[in-house]
Amino acid sequence: MAKPVKPAHARKTAKTKAKPQPSSAAADDTEIVALALPPAELSDGMRAYFAKCEEKLGFVPNVLKAYGFDNAKLEAFVAMYNDLMLAPSGLSKLEREMIAVAVSAHNRCYYCLVAHGAAVRALSGDPMLGELMVMNYRAARLSKRHRAMLDFAVKLTAEPWAVEDEHREALRKAGFSDRDIWDIAATAGFYNMSNRIASATDMRPNTVYHKQAR
Amino acid sequence: MAKPVKPAHARKTAKTKAKPQPSSAAADDTEIVALALPPAELSDGMRAYFAKCEEKLGFVPNVLKAYGFDNAKLEAFVAMYNDLMLAPSGLSKLEREMIAVAVSAHNRCYYCLVAHGAAVRALSGDPMLGELMVMNYRAARLSKRHRAMLDFAVKLTAEPWAVEDEHREALRKAGFSDRDIWDIAATAGFYNMSNRIASATDMRPNTVYHKQAR
Amino acid sequence: MAKPVKPAHARKTAKTKAKPQPSSAAADDTEIVALALPPAELSDGMRAYFAKCEEKLGFVPNVLKAYGFDNAKLEAFVAMYNDLMLAPSGLSKLEREMIAVAVSAHNRCYYCLVAHGAAVRALSGDPMLGELMVMNYRAARLSKRHRAMLDFAVKLTAEPWAVEDEHREALRKAGFSDRDIWDIAATAGFYNMSNRIASATDMRPNTVYHKQAR
Amino acid sequence: MAKPVKPAHARKTAKTKAKPQPSSAAADDTEIVALALPPAELSDGMRAYFAKCEEKLGFVPNVLKAYGFDNAKLEAFVAMYNDLMLAPSGLSKLEREMIAVAVSAHNRCYYCLVAHGAAVRALSGDPMLGELMVMNYRAARLSKRHRAMLDFAVKLTAEPWAVEDEHREALRKAGFSDRDIWDIAATAGFYNMSNRIASATDMRPNTVYHKQAR
Amino acid sequence: MAKPVKPAHARKTAKTKAKPQPSSAAADDTEIVALALPPAELSDGMRAYFAKCEEKLGFVPNVLKAYGFDNAKLEAFVAMYNDLMLAPSGLSKLEREMIAVAVSAHNRCYYCLVAHGAAVRALSGDPMLGELMVMNYRAARLSKRHRAMLDFAVKLTAEPWAVEDEHREALRKAGFSDRDIWDIAATAGFYNMSNRIASATDMRPNTVYHKQAR
Amino acid sequence: MAKPVKPAHARKTAKTKAKPQPSSAAADDTEIVALALPPAELSDGMRAYFAKCEEKLGFVPNVLKAYGFDNAKLEAFVAMYNDLMLAPSGLSKLEREMIAVAVSAHNRCYYCLVAHGAAVRALSGDPMLGELMVMNYRAARLSKRHRAMLDFAVKLTAEPWAVEDEHREALRKAGFSDRDIWDIAATAGFYNMSNRIASATDMRPNTVYHKQAR
Repeated sequence: MAKPVKPAHARKTAKTKAKPQPSSAAADDTEIVALALPPAELSDGMRAYFAKCEEKLGFVPNVLKAYGFDNAKLEAFVAMYNDLMLAPSGLSKLEREMIAVAVSAHNRCYYCLVAHGAAVRALSGDPMLGELMVMNYRAARLSKRHRAMLDFAVKLTAEPWAVEDEHREALRKAGFSDRDIWDIAATAGFYNMSNRIASATDMRPNTVYHKQAR
Repeated sequence: MAKPVKPAHARKTAKTKAKPQPSSAAADDTEIVALALPPAELSDGMRAYFAKCEEKLGFVPNVLKAYGFDNAKLEAFVAMYNDLMLAPSGLSKLEREMIAVAVSAHNRCYYCLVAHGAAVRALSGDPMLGELMVMNYRAARLSKRHRAMLDFAVKLTAEPWAVEDEHREALRKAGFSDRDIWDIAATAGFYNMSNRIASATDMRPNTVYHKQAR
Repeated sequence: MAKPVKPAHARKTAKTKAKPQPSSAAADDTEIVALALPPAELSDGMRAYFAKCEEKLGFVPNVLKAYGFDNAKLEAFVAMYNDLMLAPSGLSKLEREMIAVAVSAHNRCYYCLVAHGAAVRALSGDPMLGELMVMNYRAARLSKRHRAMLDFAVKLTAEPWAVEDEHREALRKAGFSDRDIWDIAATAGFYNMSNRIASATDMRPNTVYHKQAR
Repeated sequence: MAKPVKPAHARKTAKTKAKPQPSSAAADDTEIVALALPPAELSDGMRAYFAKCEEKLGFVPNVLKAYGFDNAKLEAFVAMYNDLMLAPSGLSKLEREMIAVAVSAHNRCYYCLVAHGAAVRALSGDPMLGELMVMNYRAARLSKRHRAMLDFAVKLTAEPWAVEDEHREALRKAGFSDRDIWDIAATAGFYNMSNRIASATDMRPNTVYHKQAR
Repeated sequence: MAKPVKPAHARKTAKTKAKPQPSSAAADDTEIVALALPPAELSDGMRAYFAKCEEKLGFVPNVLKAYGFDNAKLEAFVAMYNDLMLAPSGLSKLEREMIAVAVSAHNRCYYCLVAHGAAVRALSGDPMLGELMVMNYRAARLSKRHRAMLDFAVKLTAEPWAVEDEHREALRKAGFSDRDIWDIAATAGFYNMSNRIASATDMRPNTVYHKQAR
Repeated sequence: MAKPVKPAHARKTAKTKAKPQPSSAAADDTEIVALALPPAELSDGMRAYFAKCEEKLGFVPNVLKAYGFDNAKLEAFVAMYNDLMLAPSGLSKLEREMIAVAVSAHNRCYYCLVAHGAAVRALSGDPMLGELMVMNYRAARLSKRHRAMLDFAVKLTAEPWAVEDEHREALRKAGFSDRDIWDIAATAGFYNMSNRIASATDMRPNTVYHKQAR
């Protein structure tokens, strides 16, 4: 064999960045969806909500701006989202985000993988866990609880018609209460909705997510 | 060939009903989901909403009772549902119900097919249209508008990752506005959520739907 | 939240039927298949068979009329159909119809779902059982015998290459004899044939089935 | 690189046959199906039919022996088979066998691939055509007529629910009459039935087919 | 029923060969791939390798000629192929060929099924085993070792993302060492590569394979 | 609606990192595969190659260490890899890495997505392009050339049996030569091999990739 050659996938960053190309995602922050939907007049509540996002996060998540063409739809989405992802639950916030990403990975939803992948990295303090959820949750070294949770969520995503008592029972054996089972199902269901709205509209995530919690 | 025999699928009802079996769905109205979720205290708004259902429909749809274990979740669901299915839109209410059933047929969701199949029958005054949406929307003699709408909704259900500009463009060519496209996507998305919550919990539809608008 | 709104899927039939639309299936009884196949001269046996259908059922099932372009094909179909669905067997006639519908549901065959869905409703005296077979047999509360029977029939429909000893053994454990296993396989096989002939020709079911045994 | 080595896939037959193993298919001719189904008394017609098979072919095809547990089922099968595969049609006998094999290849049915693969080799005088039908009909250099015919048959096998006017129209453009379309559909349908009965019962083909028309 | 008719699939070869058609595969030996790739100057080693193929086999396998447009690619392919299929291993050469065919059957690769199907026939001295690997390995009467080996190889082909500890453990239980597991995986992987290169280029197998070891 | 709540997916990193969990991937660099394969004596060439990796990259890619149990296999892999990814080609190195990632995304291969996702980020200088290849290449704003290239590679990955002249022709229309088509096919093929070897052995990528070129 000829003399060894440096594998391409292991090359140093400095040199290869010498000839940057125009970013494939440069317009993400200016054109959020592929639909022409002029922004609506928002309610006081929603304006305050957007202001709080800016203050605390430094930006308004693009999904909220996307819904901003209709105040009633925005309010309904925010109410359901906040209840689902932030309200008290037997599932930790990280667990809910793990479900979000594993479901979005099955559905290959760019928006949700970027935004919620960042959330998993941030909430877990484990950047690799975020990548594992995006790439293949089966490759992660998960607790039995987390594996059972994600197996249920992904089965429910892939073949909802075939979810039966045995699958609920597997969750109970992994320590989940019936209320927790609802929350797993509702979270998996919610991202099956959001993934489709994002894909249908070519929704683009805020660029800032990419560098978060790496 | 021997003498003709009466095909089983065409036998008269009177005789074959002579020996009724215990109904395979008899408990639908008493055990709504396969999870033990004690009912919560509902808000005044939700109690009034349930009362209005009773008054106008004669019953409370089981999906609402299922959500009744948590008032906040119930309110968020009702708000999103009512906006999506009843608020002004470029899509008629019947069109939204057709999407609901075509999506639920792909996902083989018993609850949603029963409840929304009845809605299609009722809103259209065409019982066969309800059956066609349940069985195979491609077999229905649909207008180009309706076919494009359902093709998009079902593609988005089956392969959300592969929905692209060409699919949005097909809707525009069929006369849909960008706002309509959002509504088609949001309706398809919503039932992809509801189908999964119903399947995950083995939600049973109110028996009364079966006989409606036949 | 604003005042409660009546859910669309629960609306009363009377009002919504006020503006009937042209039926999406109105031509079903006049154009049975999407192929131009002039009717053949039928044999005495087949003419008598059609007459008996008219007398006992009030109509000739459209599948028979569809085959009527060729007397030999019609006779072969009728002979196989009658043996399969009506001859003595370890499977009841209802069980054979349940297989017919579960297989046709997998294949989303409009003709067979309408005709045999009616047969399940009629033979069982349980309208909901018919709907469950059409929508998702896994959601029905079935005996172990019926569940094993349908699991085998649908597996054989979806992945015939993967049916092996373990699947035959599961039927034996559920109480089926080897002869019964043949009958399950032959019935599932027959509808995998009929579903495809119906779909290939866009065969339309007799309208009368829709209202039977509701 | 080290000295060239003889590729295993190109090794001479003589040497490699030196250590024959017990044949993986040795019992094919003695145990035809994996079900215990004692042979029935056959009618005179069927006995004569078996005798004619022995006389003309030197054997009775195993599928006929498999059906031999019930004379009525055997007669119905033989009647449909002979009409479908041998009666006058716009499709040649070879074309009908090509459909049989392409459908059976999709369904990976061992029995039908062996028996009808031999028929394609024999009827065409082209052993490679038989192999191509078994392995991947898309790799064969087919006339437009044959490609259209097999595309329809395989689409109807894989996704019967999605066969529509455009697919029938493609056949008409390739020169098929409406009657031919029925025959293509009926042949594809028949093997979708037979493949499943063969797979469900682990039916074994007569060993003699393997060497025919190579 | 009318008088018995000779089943088409059992007809004698002699007669049906009376009207041979132009072979559907006649150009296989002259146009090896569907790409215009002029042959490169080969190294001494590769020329010697081709000469040895001619001497020992009577022909150069077409896959080698296909790679002959680039000597470096040819050498790399030959080195990997020979190590994988001929080097010492816990897997016999026949076992490696069985994996090759079962994987190629899943991927429906005409080139590899022809070339390696012949190898299985030759190495096993069992022509039917070759056919079974091509048609459906599940239908073969295999030892537990061989069944486990092929189940792993085909699962890895169909759903690589879902291969986990339990699947490796099943191989260990069937008596395979960890080194054997690597070899099974590497062989299955290699044909997943080769199948795709062959399909992408419409690679045609040497005609001579068809008659080998029947 | 109650007062706005900060969406979980947008939370600041600092706080959420307060309670780091044990990393889900902590053992990646010490246990490279799930098989017990003691390292072999490497040839001088391979030792020099590893040393050069250490010198230039700061680490030896784990895939090379994984192959290190057998020097001949390692050499064959390295020779093929280097020719494929680094030798002169009508495809740029970035294009070859884009194919690697799009194929690995279809196959959900954790190892390859991590290692080659980093390579796409590094070679393009566009971190988002790497993410898009991992998550859904269809969501990237690609040139027609790149879209055609990846459509071919992913089709070849998902359905190799259905790749035909029309797909090669689409590449030619996008400006690719026949030699380029080979290179696209060979690259896609190679990762279909590597993905499966990595998944079969649970291969873990070097942790260092995760932070590269973000």
